[in-house]
Amino acid sequence: MHDRKHDLKIAYIGGGSRGWAWALMSDLALDGALGGEVALYDIDKDAACANEIIGNKMTALPDAAGKWKYKAVDTLAEALRGADFIIISILPGTFEEMRSDVHEPEKYGIYQSVGDTVGPGGLIRSLRSIPMFQVIGEAVGEHAPDAWVINYTNPMAICLRTLYTVFPGIKAFGCCHEVFGTQELLADMLHDLLDVDSAERRDISINVAGLNHFTWITRASWKGIDLFPLYRQFANKYFETGYEKGGKGNWINNSFASANRVKFDLFRRYGFIAAAGDRHLAEFCPPWYLRNPATVRSWMFGLTTVDWRVDDLHRRLERSKKLASGEEPVKVEQSGEEGVLLMKALLGLDNIVSNVNLPNRGQVSNIPVGTVVETNALFACSRITPMFEAGLPDGVLELVMPHALNQRMIVKAGMEGSYDLAFNAFLNEPLVTTGLADSEKLFKTMLLNTRNYLKGSLRL
Amino acid sequence: MHDRKHDLKIAYIGGGSRGWAWALMSDLALDGALGGEVALYDIDKDAACANEIIGNKMTALPDAAGKWKYKAVDTLAEALRGADFIIISILPGTFEEMRSDVHEPEKYGIYQSVGDTVGPGGLIRSLRSIPMFQVIGEAVGEHAPDAWVINYTNPMAICLRTLYTVFPGIKAFGCCHEVFGTQELLADMLHDLLDVDSAERRDISINVAGLNHFTWITRASWKGIDLFPLYRQFANKYFETGYEKGGKGNWINNSFASANRVKFDLFRRYGFIAAAGDRHLAEFCPPWYLRNPATVRSWMFGLTTVDWRVDDLHRRLERSKKLASGEEPVKVEQSGEEGVLLMKALLGLDNIVSNVNLPNRGQVSNIPVGTVVETNALFACSRITPMFEAGLPDGVLELVMPHALNQRMIVKAGMEGSYDLAFNAFLNEPLVTTGLADSEKLFKTMLLNTRNYLKGSLRL
Amino acid sequence: MHDRKHDLKIAYIGGGSRGWAWALMSDLALDGALGGEVALYDIDKDAACANEIIGNKMTALPDAAGKWKYKAVDTLAEALRGADFIIISILPGTFEEMRSDVHEPEKYGIYQSVGDTVGPGGLIRSLRSIPMFQVIGEAVGEHAPDAWVINYTNPMAICLRTLYTVFPGIKAFGCCHEVFGTQELLADMLHDLLDVDSAERRDISINVAGLNHFTWITRASWKGIDLFPLYRQFANKYFETGYEKGGKGNWINNSFASANRVKFDLFRRYGFIAAAGDRHLAEFCPPWYLRNPATVRSWMFGLTTVDWRVDDLHRRLERSKKLASGEEPVKVEQSGEEGVLLMKALLGLDNIVSNVNLPNRGQVSNIPVGTVVETNALFACSRITPMFEAGLPDGVLELVMPHALNQRMIVKAGMEGSYDLAFNAFLNEPLVTTGLADSEKLFKTMLLNTRNYLKGSLRL
Amino acid sequence: MHDRKHDLKIAYIGGGSRGWAWALMSDLALDGALGGEVALYDIDKDAACANEIIGNKMTALPDAAGKWKYKAVDTLAEALRGADFIIISILPGTFEEMRSDVHEPEKYGIYQSVGDTVGPGGLIRSLRSIPMFQVIGEAVGEHAPDAWVINYTNPMAICLRTLYTVFPGIKAFGCCHEVFGTQELLADMLHDLLDVDSAERRDISINVAGLNHFTWITRASWKGIDLFPLYRQFANKYFETGYEKGGKGNWINNSFASANRVKFDLFRRYGFIAAAGDRHLAEFCPPWYLRNPATVRSWMFGLTTVDWRVDDLHRRLERSKKLASGEEPVKVEQSGEEGVLLMKALLGLDNIVSNVNLPNRGQVSNIPVGTVVETNALFACSRITPMFEAGLPDGVLELVMPHALNQRMIVKAGMEGSYDLAFNAFLNEPLVTTGLADSEKLFKTMLLNTRNYLKGSLRL
Repeated sequence: MHDRKHDLKIAYIGGGSRGWAWALMSDLALDGALGGEVALYDIDKDAACANEIIGNKMTALPDAAGKWKYKAVDTLAEALRGADFIIISILPGTFEEMRSDVHEPEKYGIYQSVGDTVGPGGLIRSLRSIPMFQVIGEAVGEHAPDAWVINYTNPMAICLRTLYTVFPGIKAFGCCHEVFGTQELLADMLHDLLDVDSAERRDISINVAGLNHFTWITRASWKGIDLFPLYRQFANKYFETGYEKGGKGNWINNSFASANRVKFDLFRRYGFIAAAGDRHLAEFCPPWYLRNPATVRSWMFGLTTVDWRVDDLHRRLERSKKLASGEEPVKVEQSGEEGVLLMKALLGLDNIVSNVNLPNRGQVSNIPVGTVVETNALFACSRITPMFEAGLPDGVLELVMPHALNQRMIVKAGMEGSYDLAFNAFLNEPLVTTGLADSEKLFKTMLLNTRNYLKGSLRL
Repeated sequence: MHDRKHDLKIAYIGGGSRGWAWALMSDLALDGALGGEVALYDIDKDAACANEIIGNKMTALPDAAGKWKYKAVDTLAEALRGADFIIISILPGTFEEMRSDVHEPEKYGIYQSVGDTVGPGGLIRSLRSIPMFQVIGEAVGEHAPDAWVINYTNPMAICLRTLYTVFPGIKAFGCCHEVFGTQELLADMLHDLLDVDSAERRDISINVAGLNHFTWITRASWKGIDLFPLYRQFANKYFETGYEKGGKGNWINNSFASANRVKFDLFRRYGFIAAAGDRHLAEFCPPWYLRNPATVRSWMFGLTTVDWRVDDLHRRLERSKKLASGEEPVKVEQSGEEGVLLMKALLGLDNIVSNVNLPNRGQVSNIPVGTVVETNALFACSRITPMFEAGLPDGVLELVMPHALNQRMIVKAGMEGSYDLAFNAFLNEPLVTTGLADSEKLFKTMLLNTRNYLKGSLRL
Repeated sequence: MHDRKHDLKIAYIGGGSRGWAWALMSDLALDGALGGEVALYDIDKDAACANEIIGNKMTALPDAAGKWKYKAVDTLAEALRGADFIIISILPGTFEEMRSDVHEPEKYGIYQSVGDTVGPGGLIRSLRSIPMFQVIGEAVGEHAPDAWVINYTNPMAICLRTLYTVFPGIKAFGCCHEVFGTQELLADMLHDLLDVDSAERRDISINVAGLNHFTWITRASWKGIDLFPLYRQFANKYFETGYEKGGKGNWINNSFASANRVKFDLFRRYGFIAAAGDRHLAEFCPPWYLRNPATVRSWMFGLTTVDWRVDDLHRRLERSKKLASGEEPVKVEQSGEEGVLLMKALLGLDNIVSNVNLPNRGQVSNIPVGTVVETNALFACSRITPMFEAGLPDGVLELVMPHALNQRMIVKAGMEGSYDLAFNAFLNEPLVTTGLADSEKLFKTMLLNTRNYLKGSLRL
Repeated sequence: MHDRKHDLKIAYIGGGSRGWAWALMSDLALDGALGGEVALYDIDKDAACANEIIGNKMTALPDAAGKWKYKAVDTLAEALRGADFIIISILPGTFEEMRSDVHEPEKYGIYQSVGDTVGPGGLIRSLRSIPMFQVIGEAVGEHAPDAWVINYTNPMAICLRTLYTVFPGIKAFGCCHEVFGTQELLADMLHDLLDVDSAERRDISINVAGLNHFTWITRASWKGIDLFPLYRQFANKYFETGYEKGGKGNWINNSFASANRVKFDLFRRYGFIAAAGDRHLAEFCPPWYLRNPATVRSWMFGLTTVDWRVDDLHRRLERSKKLASGEEPVKVEQSGEEGVLLMKALLGLDNIVSNVNLPNRGQVSNIPVGTVVETNALFACSRITPMFEAGLPDGVLELVMPHALNQRMIVKAGMEGSYDLAFNAFLNEPLVTTGLADSEKLFKTMLLNTRNYLKGSLRL
């Protein structure tokens, strides 16, 4: 690989309609160390073609040091063949299915703030995603078995586990920036409590372990200062009022904002820092934070509606058209994502420690082997070596374990198309507190609403 | 040991006011293979003295083949010294503490059907029991390190785990007849569905694994017939109406009866047979069966009140007086318990397979090592060899795991007197669905009500 | 299965020329509880046909309570289809290959007393057997996935592991009577030391754990007597002279006899009872007992020559002809093997505890999962539940571990046809103490001598 | 800790007569980031006093940026109290005991090239060291439970395991530069094969796992180049002639030099790079390289004699006197050791990845938990996080496992003073190929020669 770092091939699967793709293109353009070709494959070919135009415009900008040729292709196989890196960023199904995932359970009193990872909605989305990732995993095994595969798709852990089950030799990992957000919160805390302005996210040194969107920081320091005592002070200071960087009240209007009250509550319960947005964290717990809309408001975060998502997608597609047509000029700027840095490390250009999702081989010692977990890892030439975490703390472990166990059942259920296994997993979601009869009624309705994507007895 | 099987010494710790003691005395009297001395130690010396009289009366009966000398002693050490077997059957605290365990949480909407194993009540009772078992474990280590220790006290798993933590070399195990009851239900089922009258409990061949009072039957057969398809039929037949052997409606008046609807519901959810009374099973689950008294009634079991227990104790003490004074004649009959059979097996007189509570060394492969688990074991000369259970089924595992993890935290909290650890465990009880502030208020009240038995920061 | 216990189908794979087949036929004839059909498949069809005649003669005898119809069939598939039980007892290759296995290493100073389990000979035999068991495993998966498979073929562990690797759902186990022989030695000991005549093999209650032909007794008792202190006395008494039941000196003339000196030496080293014949035990150790022929003689056992085996086979084939032709009358007698008892237990007619070879799921806690291990197990209706052995003792573990690790490598090497992996395993055999160059020369010669049975780069 | 990094206290245990101490003093003097006090404790107080003088001279040099006050103290407790870091570098016993360790086994045909880690000599040295480390571990627990403890003493793994057994809360780790030497060999290789001059040791990026002095490199790269194919070429090129940086033949005269033939042979056998000097590696294997002095010579390394060590010590003591008296001027220069860098990282001044010895919590997934293993770890503020190694390769694992298992037995034997356990471990050393009787004779002689340092039945 050493000599071909300006002759790389990246396959981009999906991304036709997503900001992720533009962020990556931008990061690639800004880094002169790498170059080559990006094959764009999307089931919506038009979207891929728009990205081809946008990408090539970016690479043609004067400040673009990295030179890449973007090309929309017709088949998955064509995208994969010869790829050094494969990036997966797809939407499993449409927002119509997601509408059912998120809102159908509300009829039974089950509220979800995102609905894409765990909970009834996350589970159904998982069942829908698994067959797609079976197809991708098999294709990687056939066309690009040695390529590095970077997944950005949610539900992250389910998608990765499916890839590894289908093709155990795959070199896949998953990147997610939720942890970054919590590092930023810790940097803000240094400003708030100690008047330190210079703390940058990457200087906040942390140990992390857990499941994607439910990762826990077990140690944190900045320049020799242990951040845990400070965080206790911070959590107590802002427990009642919430803490929001950009001024009070954002969480009311912004589906993605929160006032970190859930994070503070979890810290006061367990003594460790949950490292994801409150909207994600709440869905992993018993219905402490999601009992009903009033409870949610009291915890100062929002229930993302699917209507909002539909509007947002519409906006992004409009922008895509404008960028492609030239109505809006393309520009490049650092995205804050680490994808390109990680690729460079794997090519031997640098060593970097970052959080990453990988199947547990034992790196988190008290989570079952095989579970896709999130920990730090050292990225170096041609290898990713996880940091070893001797174990999640006792109390936290109990919150994590149901989801670790469900992960296994859900992937098995989705791959085999097994209604019984999937329903077992459904019953074990902490948010599902309905009785057996109601649970089954809800489950069947949700399956029917996404039936076309399912296999076997899941199709009812 | 071979030559001294008529010269044994049994130490009986507690039991002064309990039917258990009389059942054991009766079984000992009926078996001529063993004989010797029983030292009775109870913090209520009068109760021990009454048992001394009752025991000696039993052994004097003409139909008593086993000859034993009963003697109340003044100290634990005196009871233990030279013992071959030690039986522990104590009440940790009084019913006043138990009243708080069971009824205080009701003020916060948390209902418990027993309150002695898990849930908020079981947890507080655990914290109270642990220091007592620390004392006993240390005394065994000092005075009778080679004796077999049989525990009958609840919370079974917590008590045993404390003994093993204090004195890792202890040869302790725990006996519980809840599994027997489920074997009897299966025998009844054979009568109900196949008109088989001859099925006896011990002929129902089962594999079991789980935690005491939440053990699961993973395989069951009778004379070559797989009982699982039959049980599915049985559970469906009686799911709505419930099944009670002794006629309908017992559960309304009898605190210990149930109509097995919880067991049937769990089977329909998970496909495996929960092997304990419904009152125990319900407390291990999320509040599916215990949401409120109406829910409990709809599942056809009762909430045992502590008032009932107080009355019952009063009746037993009265009877004890009458038996000791001769006002009521003593008699001997098989108790259905297996304690004496197990002792004989350990002395090399027989081999027997029975369910037993022991620390997990790996015999249940997906439960953390160290957890006290219940499985079958082969009892033979001087050894107990557990049967290996390759793992609890996925769905069931998720119900069991929170309690397996809590077991470890609770014993640690109780031994170290750690408020923080104990409160973490409290929050992780599936029945505790109250918010953080209410949970802490309830927890503190319950601790204060049992304060005299606690250590360190648990004393508040 | 319940109703068809007189309508069973047994598939017998191999056995055309082996005493095993007659022993089983005899045991089947003597037990009236079972009946049905036995399909005989052997690559030597004539041998199978001879067994058809012999089997049908046995079943026709007046003292034959079990009625069976024997039938030689043409294909493996025909034998397997519809089978309830499958028995595998084949010779992997011919004695010409075995001649190389046993005698080629002697040219490099490596002596082997059997050469069929471990050591250079056992390893090469393994590589030869693995492709055969791949074929059988696949056929079972296709034609009789629910049948119980009983393997008698050596190398036992390798053959079973191959079956489970090819078809993970297989219900296969392995029976071996080496442990029985050690139980008999303990019975003899009771006679020798305590003048007890009544001790029978099955009354010697033992815990066992290890690898086939290198199993260790970790506990032993008889009627409440711990046999370990007695065995220490016994080992010391006969360490110098050896102990042979049938009078001194048998080991000189009989390839299968020994004077148990290796067993005694191992007990004196490690304090546990090795439960197999000395000839097998010696091959698992560093060359303590096999350094050269003089050493072997001093330990009072023999090196079985392949010439002897060739003669012995000739005798058995002659006898087969005579039995089939009627020149020698067939008769039935208990074989001492437990195969039929185990089948009855699996059909639900009885519960029985016996030693058995199965993949380790955790039943031997300090041996890697997946290794085929030998422990006791409870055979009951439709299931085999291993007894849990908390771990081989420290010292013994070190002797066992190299073979446990090699087992994995050898099966992988054989299935994938990988020279490199196989050679790694070869170097790790404790008997292989030659340097790298000589080791490779020997290994290549041995491979070439058995080349026709091998795959991939093993064919050189 | 943050604010006191110029007010640190280091306790130096031992080191009175060793170059190690001067190297550390020199590194401390050269780094201005830290400062404070060094308490010197040695059972030879004169040696400690000499070091006090030498250390204070170094800190007074004009080029000494780091300011430290050295002070010899009278008791271990005085040294430990208030320490932030504790460095242990002692000689367990004298060279008279080492003479027996190394040379007594030669009478039985067992040759050792070092005799301080494994083999009969390493085992006896371990038994002697364990009681010393029990004392140190207890003292750390009492006087400095929060200090970081850095051990340099051999046998490294045994010493660390003893510390952790005595005081499980200890924050101890072990540093060893053997891995550095192999990194340097890889840098030399780049020069030899690719004419690269710029490769520095720390740029050779490696994954390591194993036991101290028997660590294995499982991945190696330099600037994006995979070094394994190159190393295969290198090993083949120099297998016959050996490779020595400083010209041919050094190994003949220099007890510490070798021509790397053992390393090359191991690579050709197993395909992985053994990362220690040949003299150490040879002792972990069966007697492939140490059968007799001629074999050793053919592998081009030497048997270090104890006479040489005695002379060397004499030279060092002489030099110590001269340095203290001023006859020889002190000077400071980088030692190449990483101790000071690691201390800085633990104080939060930097993050650094380096190889380190720690108890296995699961970071090497196929070595028993509790074994002290060597892997890379990330040193950051107040924590050491090991890199996770999914498992030693199959073949290598078999070489490592006997020593991993023996480690446990030896520490237990030494702490309990158990002859039986220790002798079991002795028999399991791969170099001990003598029969039972000879082995016991040798073992007893060696124990008697070091009797004064032993406990319990080890004192014979």
